Amino acid sequence: MGINYFRRDDRDTRFVLFEHMGVDKILTYEPYKDFSADDFKMIVEEALKVCREVVGPTMQDGDREGCKYHEDGSVTVPSSYHEAWRVLAENGWMAVTKSQEFNGQGLPPIVGGLIGEFFTGANMAFMTFPGLAVGNGNLIENFGTAEDKALFVEKMYTGVWGGTMCLTEPDAGSDVGWLRTKATPDPESGDPRIYKIEGTKRFITCGNQNLTENIIHLLLARIQGAPTGTKGISLFIVPKIWVNPDGSLGEPNDVFCAGIEHKMGIHGSSTATLNFGENGRCRGILLGEPNSGMAKMFQMMNEARIGCGIQALGIAASAYDAARFYARERVQGPLFTNRAGGRVPIIQHEDVRLMLMNMKAGTEAMRAFVAKLLYLADVGEHDSDPEERRKAAQRVELLTPLVKAYLSDFGYLLTREAIQLMGGVGYCSEFPAEQYARDIKIVSIWEGTSYIQSLDLVGRKLGIAGGTVFQEWIQEVMAFSGKNKEDTDLVKDFKLLFKAAQATGDIAMKYMQYFQEGKMSLIPLSSVRFLECFAETVMAHLMLEQALIAREKLKEVDAGSADGFFYRGKLETAKFFCRNILTNVFARYTAIQQEDTSPVDIPEGAF
Amino acid sequence: MGINYFRRDDRDTRFVLFEHMGVDKILTYEPYKDFSADDFKMIVEEALKVCREVVGPTMQDGDREGCKYHEDGSVTVPSSYHEAWRVLAENGWMAVTKSQEFNGQGLPPIVGGLIGEFFTGANMAFMTFPGLAVGNGNLIENFGTAEDKALFVEKMYTGVWGGTMCLTEPDAGSDVGWLRTKATPDPESGDPRIYKIEGTKRFITCGNQNLTENIIHLLLARIQGAPTGTKGISLFIVPKIWVNPDGSLGEPNDVFCAGIEHKMGIHGSSTATLNFGENGRCRGILLGEPNSGMAKMFQMMNEARIGCGIQALGIAASAYDAARFYARERVQGPLFTNRAGGRVPIIQHEDVRLMLMNMKAGTEAMRAFVAKLLYLADVGEHDSDPEERRKAAQRVELLTPLVKAYLSDFGYLLTREAIQLMGGVGYCSEFPAEQYARDIKIVSIWEGTSYIQSLDLVGRKLGIAGGTVFQEWIQEVMAFSGKNKEDTDLVKDFKLLFKAAQATGDIAMKYMQYFQEGKMSLIPLSSVRFLECFAETVMAHLMLEQALIAREKLKEVDAGSADGFFYRGKLETAKFFCRNILTNVFARYTAIQQEDTSPVDIPEGAF
Repeated sequence: MGINYFRRDDRDTRFVLFEHMGVDKILTYEPYKDFSADDFKMIVEEALKVCREVVGPTMQDGDREGCKYHEDGSVTVPSSYHEAWRVLAENGWMAVTKSQEFNGQGLPPIVGGLIGEFFTGANMAFMTFPGLAVGNGNLIENFGTAEDKALFVEKMYTGVWGGTMCLTEPDAGSDVGWLRTKATPDPESGDPRIYKIEGTKRFITCGNQNLTENIIHLLLARIQGAPTGTKGISLFIVPKIWVNPDGSLGEPNDVFCAGIEHKMGIHGSSTATLNFGENGRCRGILLGEPNSGMAKMFQMMNEARIGCGIQALGIAASAYDAARFYARERVQGPLFTNRAGGRVPIIQHEDVRLMLMNMKAGTEAMRAFVAKLLYLADVGEHDSDPEERRKAAQRVELLTPLVKAYLSDFGYLLTREAIQLMGGVGYCSEFPAEQYARDIKIVSIWEGTSYIQSLDLVGRKLGIAGGTVFQEWIQEVMAFSGKNKEDTDLVKDFKLLFKAAQATGDIAMKYMQYFQEGKMSLIPLSSVRFLECFAETVMAHLMLEQALIAREKLKEVDAGSADGFFYRGKLETAKFFCRNILTNVFARYTAIQQEDTSPVDIPEGAF
Repeated sequence: MGINYFRRDDRDTRFVLFEHMGVDKILTYEPYKDFSADDFKMIVEEALKVCREVVGPTMQDGDREGCKYHEDGSVTVPSSYHEAWRVLAENGWMAVTKSQEFNGQGLPPIVGGLIGEFFTGANMAFMTFPGLAVGNGNLIENFGTAEDKALFVEKMYTGVWGGTMCLTEPDAGSDVGWLRTKATPDPESGDPRIYKIEGTKRFITCGNQNLTENIIHLLLARIQGAPTGTKGISLFIVPKIWVNPDGSLGEPNDVFCAGIEHKMGIHGSSTATLNFGENGRCRGILLGEPNSGMAKMFQMMNEARIGCGIQALGIAASAYDAARFYARERVQGPLFTNRAGGRVPIIQHEDVRLMLMNMKAGTEAMRAFVAKLLYLADVGEHDSDPEERRKAAQRVELLTPLVKAYLSDFGYLLTREAIQLMGGVGYCSEFPAEQYARDIKIVSIWEGTSYIQSLDLVGRKLGIAGGTVFQEWIQEVMAFSGKNKEDTDLVKDFKLLFKAAQATGDIAMKYMQYFQEGKMSLIPLSSVRFLECFAETVMAHLMLEQALIAREKLKEVDAGSADGFFYRGKLETAKFFCRNILTNVFARYTAIQQEDTSPVDIPEGAF
């Protein structure tokens, strides 16, 4: 077994959950009536324990052993995964936020997301398997018939069966609408919902494995005669092994795994090419109405995109843990500010402090962002006030592309920082930093690249409710910074926040102008930058909210106690975020103001 | 054999060499009197050919096979390396810039550096072996006795023997002065230059291998009774197998390879732990005077630091090549600006253009920077005018830490861009992008981390000649931008350059103030950022010089010809650099102006 590097503590998680977001409101919602704040606290502690003892030990091990493809089309996962899978399944750690009706735990999304950070931080590759099983099960729960639900959902929530999302094809990546997989009615089956499936899907995460007796693929295909593009795509349940009406397993369903990819990271997660219906015997069950597949898949995709933010947070926070523990133990030369002093643990070195702060501020802001979004998701679904529900749900829509794109790109940079801090050791595979960098890189690619997210933001989300959702956000940030502008400690920070919100608002206004003036090419040339400005402003806002709370709490505790360190640290961390990370907004703003079109003006032959 | 992805062309190399820097002046220098510009052109072409045919095919292959450690302490390199080594050795591709007296090629550094880019871009891991052999040989040529030179240099220049730099120890990384390896006089040897060596060195690149019959280690150790710290360090020649006075090989010299590291990248380069004198039988030859080791090692280190810039350039440019060829072939959906249009090669997509431009501008600016530095190195050594020599040599000193730190960090980001552009394919090991990211990451760590470079810049280099070297550079940039401020095409760009130089100068002034006011901690908290501002300004300056040249040349060629595309592309690329990369200076400047001390104010217990 590889070395277990999972060493997360839950202090900041508890802060976010109980001191910043708060759970009182959520606890009043009908689905959570049987829970208490203490339950959540206990669940967070238990999750940490499972990650430390069960999932963490499989990370390095799984990277080294990897998934293996065999000529008969079977795939074996790293051997240590089986026991971890068993423990998670038996103890209900898979479908933590899903309905108790199908044996999920029914926890609120914010709790699910915060413990999800631990699990993905303990071994992201491993967690792709339960993640897809549960996500798929949820889609069937939402859109399936009573029979579909009875057949599939509980088994997918409890680790009996796995799942995959089959979207990508060799010739259709970001461009899903181009897919070629065909579905044709199968009159012989006697069931109008059953179709014959034929096509090839590529880059299918968890596409084949030997963890579960069956895998339930959710597959996008075009029914014969359906419109071209995304409007003619339908969603099918395609079991690897056919499931009989009584729930027993039938015949293999003509789904052949043609190979798995060798990848930069997540070696323990199988990325497969799947051939459906090579022998004309693959059957799928239509899920919902014909041609409604994209909309349904988007529901799962939205959840998966927030999931990507959680993955990025999980790995970045583990990279920070690796770096801070190393920095405490590693002794090197004297401080820059005290050259005559002796050798000290490098956690005292100024540059190491700078890197640690970058990781600390980065991961805490990511955690706050994820928690805020999941909190709002709950309000948007369950609040008794319809206006509150609408506002929260729309805010979630607006912010989802930010969480997906920004956190995944920023997370990659933070893993780089961990490698750099650890020096040669950071580059060596005995230590975890380089694996974190390799594993996290996929997150900015799958579930829609950062650019795709930025188009979703600019093309769809900015315009929700005539742009008022975005406008309300800007006003909220400006009111918050305006109200606190006299704050002695944080005067610089509130000023930076105000200016960043202003810059972000200005860019959005520019986009309106570009649309009107037909300067369309300026939009895709700056949309990722705009998304980054927006995300950093959201995160700075959250960090300053946390700073104000921490400063109040500090009055009640001994400054030298563990809580004292935590609250003082929080205050400094918020400053750091505003002064060192949020300031990037201004470079991007300057760049956008140049309205540079050189990338489209340059002749293609010059590349 | 793995897939060969090396597809560099030499158009920009020729531009830099003959149109931007020019070789006329260099050709007047005594050491190059037998060369012509045509010779250089031919050598560049030949180097490309060798990289395409011989070195390129070993890259993916070497990554997959890796170096292997065996229990007897031996290390085998990837099997494809042997033939590549033979070709390079036999055809004089190793010591291209070293003296012909010892069978080097005697080429000027700028030519050596520009073809070095090809070789490292073809397989950086492989090139560590000749790189260290030649670098070591050069140190012996510079500081050895006539006997040392006769024994070692030619064999190290021609691939008969390998070399290593043995600095790092388990407890002394960036903190070299702390090393514990001991040297004790060996009266039995009858030669006062021979010492007994005892100690352990870690992270020794090319520490053991089966490419050459012998390895000549250059090792830092402390002679018994020498002062502590870097002042008491001496340099020793420690052959793996003792070399008899007649040049024949003697006994093994008690150097045991205790293992090699498993690393994120450069799997084909062995990174060894070496135990010297475990059995009391390891002998070393003192190179130069006792306690002069650090200064000597620094001479090699300075060259190695520029070499790191070349490595970063080589890999980043190969990542750009991979991305641009992929973008030409990969067909996906329509343009953002023409949603109704059909599917097109993604090289037409606006966001792909943006990423390609980032890589093109980045690598061309890196190439210009490396070439400028190597050009100046030649002037600094060989110009007939002593004032010219002094100025050029001092400028090289000033800029060396920038080339090492900035290029290695920026190069890593550019490999990220290549992965992102290629999407899922970029993450897969069948394609080269992910290997480039893994290989390049070491460059910002070895030969002194980016932070160490920034301290070298701020602590030593800014102060050269009372700060006048830096001041002269600022004035030069300002004069250049002032002279061109009315330029219609590039008005924005010269303005940005001026402001960036101003900001960079301001930060340097601030540092003087911090020193005076004792605000010492602000220096290490911002020095890497300062270095980055400085480097981007240098590079923008060079890119604008290139733009002016290209615009003139454009008048002489057909705009639709290959040269027409190249020159038009160069103009757009310079704009892109200024408007999209140089603009980062302003975010860093804003951040530095906050004078944030949160990383040192935060209690240690908060991490």
